[in-house]
Amino acid sequence: MNGFRLTTKAPDSQARAGELHTAHGTVPTPIFLPVASKGTVKALSPDDLKTIGVEMLLANTYHLYLQPGIAVIEKMGGLHRFMAWGRPILTDSGGYQVFSLAGLRRVSDDGVVFRSHIDGSEHLLTPELAINYQESIGADIIMVLDECAPPEASRAQIEEAMQRTHRWAERCKKAQSRNDQSLFAIVQGGSYPDLRRMSAEYLASLDFPGYAIGGLSLGEPKKTTYEMVDATVPLLPGDKPRYLMGVGSPEDIVEGVARGIDVFDCALPTRVARNGALFTDTGRINIRNAAYREMPGPVDRACDCYTCRTFSAAYLHHLFNARELLVYRLTTIHNIRFMVRLMARMRAAIEAGAFAAFRKQFTENYRPTDERVRLEQKEKWLKKQSNAGAETI
Amino acid sequence: MNGFRLTTKAPDSQARAGELHTAHGTVPTPIFLPVASKGTVKALSPDDLKTIGVEMLLANTYHLYLQPGIAVIEKMGGLHRFMAWGRPILTDSGGYQVFSLAGLRRVSDDGVVFRSHIDGSEHLLTPELAINYQESIGADIIMVLDECAPPEASRAQIEEAMQRTHRWAERCKKAQSRNDQSLFAIVQGGSYPDLRRMSAEYLASLDFPGYAIGGLSLGEPKKTTYEMVDATVPLLPGDKPRYLMGVGSPEDIVEGVARGIDVFDCALPTRVARNGALFTDTGRINIRNAAYREMPGPVDRACDCYTCRTFSAAYLHHLFNARELLVYRLTTIHNIRFMVRLMARMRAAIEAGAFAAFRKQFTENYRPTDERVRLEQKEKWLKKQSNAGAETI
Repeated sequence: MNGFRLTTKAPDSQARAGELHTAHGTVPTPIFLPVASKGTVKALSPDDLKTIGVEMLLANTYHLYLQPGIAVIEKMGGLHRFMAWGRPILTDSGGYQVFSLAGLRRVSDDGVVFRSHIDGSEHLLTPELAINYQESIGADIIMVLDECAPPEASRAQIEEAMQRTHRWAERCKKAQSRNDQSLFAIVQGGSYPDLRRMSAEYLASLDFPGYAIGGLSLGEPKKTTYEMVDATVPLLPGDKPRYLMGVGSPEDIVEGVARGIDVFDCALPTRVARNGALFTDTGRINIRNAAYREMPGPVDRACDCYTCRTFSAAYLHHLFNARELLVYRLTTIHNIRFMVRLMARMRAAIEAGAFAAFRKQFTENYRPTDERVRLEQKEKWLKKQSNAGAETI
Repeated sequence: MNGFRLTTKAPDSQARAGELHTAHGTVPTPIFLPVASKGTVKALSPDDLKTIGVEMLLANTYHLYLQPGIAVIEKMGGLHRFMAWGRPILTDSGGYQVFSLAGLRRVSDDGVVFRSHIDGSEHLLTPELAINYQESIGADIIMVLDECAPPEASRAQIEEAMQRTHRWAERCKKAQSRNDQSLFAIVQGGSYPDLRRMSAEYLASLDFPGYAIGGLSLGEPKKTTYEMVDATVPLLPGDKPRYLMGVGSPEDIVEGVARGIDVFDCALPTRVARNGALFTDTGRINIRNAAYREMPGPVDRACDCYTCRTFSAAYLHHLFNARELLVYRLTTIHNIRFMVRLMARMRAAIEAGAFAAFRKQFTENYRPTDERVRLEQKEKWLKKQSNAGAETI
């Protein structure tokens, strides 16, 4: 039942279209997964997600482990039932969060000891526990535990983390007891193309049902992200899905698809929405800008989302000024709908043999946010997250 | 077109059922109006409100005057269009907020000078301006400017405020230039039954299309609220709608209907929802209570709202603990749906000649929140509101 079927390969790039089959249904690729860290895409209900056209979500094992706890989710019948979402879910293993959010890490071959960013309590995560937790949560696609070395690490440290990730991948595979979940491996290797190739080649030999590229989107320049994808993709099996973890600005996704990536996840579209930044085909606008104070039209005339069909930019501007709760939902609806439409437009272009033209046109029109600004925003957010439980918006 | 039609009078109490005709449609009475202070019922969209069955809203002239400003709403085509709500709206005059939230008031016969609770800036409100603003906002029912004396005021001060309210009511009537809005008068008189009677009698002689009872719900005991309603109602014209301002706990509404009130508004159901308090037929429960941590069933088995149909109490408990934005919407949906169902049940009971039995049963089952707790919560909220613009949730 589970598996991946390639349906179209673009003649003019690495881009491809396919279908991902899971225990909770089939989804088309390339696909973008909104992030439901704690079992909710912030500010949206499952009905909102269905209306928007979202077909699959990502949830974070680390966050769910801390709140409400794996045992609660298991008792409530698994995450699908707990959050009332009947479509596919992918869970990460907790590796990325443990290495980016949690404090005081001690890594050994056995696993990693970390401190909760909420209350400072100490916890152990091993490859076996990561699988165990993800089996209790019950996602359709689950991930191996990986070690994410920080970008400032030395080559030796990055290579060591990669080797450990490989050993952990094998242990994760052995630890699997459910056969209705697909376990994806994660390629590491920092910003070294040769390490990335080595990692891809080794993991490919272990025959996983899918492959992720991890350890990117950590603050490296976009150029590096793309180079690492270019180094990795040719060594991954062509008939297996490829997942670029944590990368999800519109411009990055277009470049990722062009390089043969099938699956993306990222908190950026929802996070920036709650900050007033809205995607359009010409780039991001910020609704808090005084220019929108008396704008009677929608934020994006090309958009068919509930927000754009119903409300003026002036109303959203007012709600933001007044810090009204409704606005976070409305801006999130818009950004996620933008992502869903972007993926559909890319699939259509691939199927029509016109992806290169789509990519050219999109890139010419879309003005990416200055990279420095983007990274500052992300750092601010990560800092806020690790301030014990203070995060609301 | 505008007007009120009485359809049923209960044989066993003062309760009555009717229809309120407005420029944006007809609504059944008795009716409860959720509060959309700044042009949004906090955490809900217009679609949510329609799904819940809300037929009419209240918006606050004071809040809209400060944010986004009357001119913006007027330019955007009025409040109905600005907030995408095509059903009836009632606006208050700003009187209550000026006398409860704003600072540094100087009252004279001309009007009242007050300081914004957002930025401390000084503003003037007169009867003529109150009408002018409400005509620009474009509500279906608008209110006269009244002076709300604080509960601790002397009898002489309360009588003076009442007399001024009467003079202002006449000025408001003269200031009206639109003929598609119904202007309601407001009875004042504090906790003095004789002043209440005097006020009702005087205003009744001026022949307004509707009458409100104001200056209650300011911290006086429930018993006093009911006594003032009892003193006032017999002196109001029987063929005009009666509106009890700012009163809206389930138990108070049942008592208000029993005393012949047709219209209610109150921020309580939405405010307490955002604090985790949910209405059921046996009283309020608080979803933050540890008892709900692993409860697989809905909060209220008797409820047909989206929240109760879709999510377990355990999920709401988790969302609250994690301060997830979705939860404020889900709890608000439940409480407003409870209010809508309560009003519908009362109307059905009135029409079946069985209101007294309904009231008895409701009162026996519903355990009201301790009055002291309720008032402390309200004071905390008012304080939070007047902390310059700090309010989000």
